[in-house]
Amino acid sequence: MQISINANRCEPSPMRKFHPFAVTAEAQGKHIYHLNIGQPDLPTPRAYLDAVRGFDEKTVAYAESPGKPVLIDAVRGYYQKLGVDLSPNEVLITTGGSEALLLTCLSILDPYTEVIIPEPYYPNYTTFVHAAGGVIRALPTNPWEGYRYAKRERIESLITKNTRAILITNPGNPTGVVLDEQEMRMIADVAKEHDLFLICDEVYREFCYDEKFGVPTMARFSDIDENLVIIDSVSKRFSACGARVGCVITRNRELQQALLKFCQSRLAVATIDQIGAAALYSVDQDFFRRSKAEYKRRRDTVVRRLRAIPGVVVEEPMGAFYLMASLPVDDADKFQRWLLECFDDHGDTVMFAPGAPFYETPGKGVNEVRIAYVLKQEDLERAMDVLAKGIACYQRSVMKVTPPAAM
Amino acid sequence: MQISINANRCEPSPMRKFHPFAVTAEAQGKHIYHLNIGQPDLPTPRAYLDAVRGFDEKTVAYAESPGKPVLIDAVRGYYQKLGVDLSPNEVLITTGGSEALLLTCLSILDPYTEVIIPEPYYPNYTTFVHAAGGVIRALPTNPWEGYRYAKRERIESLITKNTRAILITNPGNPTGVVLDEQEMRMIADVAKEHDLFLICDEVYREFCYDEKFGVPTMARFSDIDENLVIIDSVSKRFSACGARVGCVITRNRELQQALLKFCQSRLAVATIDQIGAAALYSVDQDFFRRSKAEYKRRRDTVVRRLRAIPGVVVEEPMGAFYLMASLPVDDADKFQRWLLECFDDHGDTVMFAPGAPFYETPGKGVNEVRIAYVLKQEDLERAMDVLAKGIACYQRSVMKVTPPAAM
Repeated sequence: MQISINANRCEPSPMRKFHPFAVTAEAQGKHIYHLNIGQPDLPTPRAYLDAVRGFDEKTVAYAESPGKPVLIDAVRGYYQKLGVDLSPNEVLITTGGSEALLLTCLSILDPYTEVIIPEPYYPNYTTFVHAAGGVIRALPTNPWEGYRYAKRERIESLITKNTRAILITNPGNPTGVVLDEQEMRMIADVAKEHDLFLICDEVYREFCYDEKFGVPTMARFSDIDENLVIIDSVSKRFSACGARVGCVITRNRELQQALLKFCQSRLAVATIDQIGAAALYSVDQDFFRRSKAEYKRRRDTVVRRLRAIPGVVVEEPMGAFYLMASLPVDDADKFQRWLLECFDDHGDTVMFAPGAPFYETPGKGVNEVRIAYVLKQEDLERAMDVLAKGIACYQRSVMKVTPPAAM
Repeated sequence: MQISINANRCEPSPMRKFHPFAVTAEAQGKHIYHLNIGQPDLPTPRAYLDAVRGFDEKTVAYAESPGKPVLIDAVRGYYQKLGVDLSPNEVLITTGGSEALLLTCLSILDPYTEVIIPEPYYPNYTTFVHAAGGVIRALPTNPWEGYRYAKRERIESLITKNTRAILITNPGNPTGVVLDEQEMRMIADVAKEHDLFLICDEVYREFCYDEKFGVPTMARFSDIDENLVIIDSVSKRFSACGARVGCVITRNRELQQALLKFCQSRLAVATIDQIGAAALYSVDQDFFRRSKAEYKRRRDTVVRRLRAIPGVVVEEPMGAFYLMASLPVDDADKFQRWLLECFDDHGDTVMFAPGAPFYETPGKGVNEVRIAYVLKQEDLERAMDVLAKGIACYQRSVMKVTPPAAM
């Protein structure tokens, strides 16, 4: 028996592969601050559970393959407020943004075809692209340029006859980069001129910490209807990750048909979660304002505290709720395992996502980490204490170096 | 822009592709008897909604990628009653049996590798196999042999150096064939001797209408641990299709690792549905007995009524809740569309799944249909009336033939 080549090309998720070690550490009585997964601690609006509890049909039946009309309409209403008109067939409800990405990759990638993705990028993109036999062409960025990637000549230099798509996350995970209007326009133009799909993962759209960005979406550029694929989700927007409800939006008819075939094959997205998700779209704008303000505070805390740790390099992210930081350790992966197995500070330790799997280019990101600032203020403060002490202890006991005094 | 070869190799679901015509027909005021989808009308046990309503965490958070421990334990408890001991890592919770199948195909199939599947088979298998670039090698059956496929020489004659797996549905969808112990053993032996994965879709396990079959599962053969992949789901067992909760079970460690990578990439299965599904496993055996008795009555009704329609050929299915029938029409696909667009009997019409997409072999199944006997007795009786009248009217008005008098 043989495992498929494409499965072998995939890696365990850097956000989740330490889960067994975390279980062991917790069994030993350690408390772990989870900065490894984008699982916000903000409450899900009550509208979700209220709608779920209101479900009272005697049979929990399949929903429609493209999604429940009530949810499709809710999504359309939300986009209308952003100035984007969508017809019902342009929205396909999926099991989270994850399924939207997987089905998009299966629909547009053949073996050995290429997708251009700015690196560092969300590592699960690798699995979705590889599942379809595709290849990632990494668009390199630099920490000292704030990981900004929207340079026309750099993007165009990566386009080959095998290129099928450009995939961006805006606002960015893991870097927090947010594109300005001009950059978005340039990328749209490149996709259009070179006949490429432009896959925009916009699940963090509401989380931009500079007012100038507003609520960015490529969907406003109506001249790229044939190219554009929007990946969306209720997970981050409404702090409802466990609902597993997302959608893929495209005006490209051929792609709609391809996606629909895959949607039909898996029958439907969970019924009551769709009903709950539809209700989420009724929350008022104030919910977004409060969420954003809260995350901004958290970002400021984490950046401030990280900068106070000697040897840590970090840029201030402008959106989403992640940041990449370079740590003064030899190997972030090894450091993470050590934090779980060999370290605690008064019973506490911390998890992040090691940086290397966020890069396609070998050797990059080895001492970088992605930190999700998804915990409340005091937890973040304490997690940063633990991280600082962990780094110092690791440097002394494993790397055998004497750390400089804290600033 | 280009759609992928594999997406183009897939077809719309024959169970769902008429959905737009159904919407139009219903908008015109027609009532449709849905025998096209395996969506039972039996009530979902209250345990599901009770558990869902009991969920009271403030944040609807991601579940663990392999599944919530409470559900994994419930699945293990259920298998223990079947005499099968499973350790927690041998069960991966999936978004329905559908995701279990897709992830299994992605994990074991490379482009141009082959899966042997008895035909007629569940058409969505095509999409899952094609998504991974695989090829279906159909194991032919005959209506006059009751669609039985467990013939060693026929199976072995299809094995090539590219064969990766044998995929069976037991009890069978769409044929209702149930394998006896000897047949199961023989197929297990073939898989073992030829080093093939044996994917057993056993989601209809509880629905065997002859007591001699008991509750069949290949999982009882412990000598094929390396080969066996069980696909399972709460959808049919508990009449909870809309929960979208299933699982894939394997003791093959390499396959577990491959599947887990895909599970991690899509993060998790919906949280509250897993909690509801775990509760379903607490229903007593009486629930299964009553369900089975009800479906047996329905089967008897449909078979009796179909046999009374002149020109219809049908075998009595032994399990699941489907049957294949040959209709005296030129083309079941054309007939279905006509039933929706041009026909009604006192405002009623009927849907089934046209048979051709259940076959890989071209030309087969053109005048066959799959009927799901998932409606209550009186609805089935009425649906058969409508079908009989529809056939007679179609023969006269479209095929321009004079039907013989009813028996």
